[in-house]
Amino acid sequence: MGKNDEWAGKSREILKDKNIRMVNIIGSPGCGKTTLLETVSKSDDFDLRFAVLEGDVETANDAERLNALNVEVSQLITSGGCHLEAKMINAALTDLNLDDLDLVIVENVGNLVCPAEFDIGEHAKIAVLSVTEGEDKPVKYPHLFRESKAVLLTKVDLLPYLPFDIDKCIDYIRQVNANVPIFRIASIKNEGIKEFITWLKQDTY
Amino acid sequence: MGKNDEWAGKSREILKDKNIRMVNIIGSPGCGKTTLLETVSKSDDFDLRFAVLEGDVETANDAERLNALNVEVSQLITSGGCHLEAKMINAALTDLNLDDLDLVIVENVGNLVCPAEFDIGEHAKIAVLSVTEGEDKPVKYPHLFRESKAVLLTKVDLLPYLPFDIDKCIDYIRQVNANVPIFRIASIKNEGIKEFITWLKQDTY
Repeated sequence: MGKNDEWAGKSREILKDKNIRMVNIIGSPGCGKTTLLETVSKSDDFDLRFAVLEGDVETANDAERLNALNVEVSQLITSGGCHLEAKMINAALTDLNLDDLDLVIVENVGNLVCPAEFDIGEHAKIAVLSVTEGEDKPVKYPHLFRESKAVLLTKVDLLPYLPFDIDKCIDYIRQVNANVPIFRIASIKNEGIKEFITWLKQDTY
Repeated sequence: MGKNDEWAGKSREILKDKNIRMVNIIGSPGCGKTTLLETVSKSDDFDLRFAVLEGDVETANDAERLNALNVEVSQLITSGGCHLEAKMINAALTDLNLDDLDLVIVENVGNLVCPAEFDIGEHAKIAVLSVTEGEDKPVKYPHLFRESKAVLLTKVDLLPYLPFDIDKCIDYIRQVNANVPIFRIASIKNEGIKEFITWLKQDTY
């Protein structure tokens, strides 16, 4: 962890110097991280200059989806690795044209456990939990939800078809992180996106 | 890995001696592993004597759900760990009354990446993928799908509400594992359960 934290510190210096914010988006495989980024990047409310660092175990599928929207995206393949490490992020950052950026969005490997353990130099971890996953995930995987500065409950358009009690889920989130902002999001219906963008655009996290 | 494989070997010996099969169920958080086990254990078609080893990062929620159905279950808490290791399984096995068992079902920690890397002495890994997670997960997380002797596509009752192409998903599975049996399952509607139980009861995997 020592080396990892060193690299994270270096990235933080670079970001500070260039006045860029960086967020680290973490959630299970298929919780809707890439679809969220597609919707955010298409939104008229999102007027930041940004780039995406796209972490995946294999394939460039997600980077290609964002490329198709003219988003500046770097693909980071972990080749089996279960999380992104600070050194990979640092290398990717130095390849970006940092003078033209306000925000770097890291989409981590789909995994509720390991990515939460690693500082990559980000200003905020953001937890993404799809409502298809069940209410109790915040207490079953508490580390991520405790560390996060925002929690996104995604796919809320599916709530009518699911045995999912959203208030119970929010109670579970509050048990591990009493004051974290929680956003209810349905990316494919553009629901909750504006509120999340407003949060993303502030620079107090 | 050397130590882990040694413990896995010891467990395999014990299971062979007692003529018990062991399966290792792996999938993302919230893909429906516990609900599947609830439905299987309630099914009239499931006449094996079995126990569940329930892996979780935190909480005994899942073990309690199965306990409520009078299933014999041991809770294994990894306290932050992202997968079950062979030594934990070996210790849990020796606590079971092995003379009264035909099958041990391990529910691994919710994670598509790390648990696939570890031999725990099982006869088969079983991959669980919820249709809410998107079609491309088998190629994005190929290791698990390559290693598995069965793939369960769960929550198929939600297909009418999702932009999910099941044939495309099956194509992706076939790209990494050409002949693996694939089951379409909706646990809460009891769909596909009988077929999965028939597979589970054979002893050729």
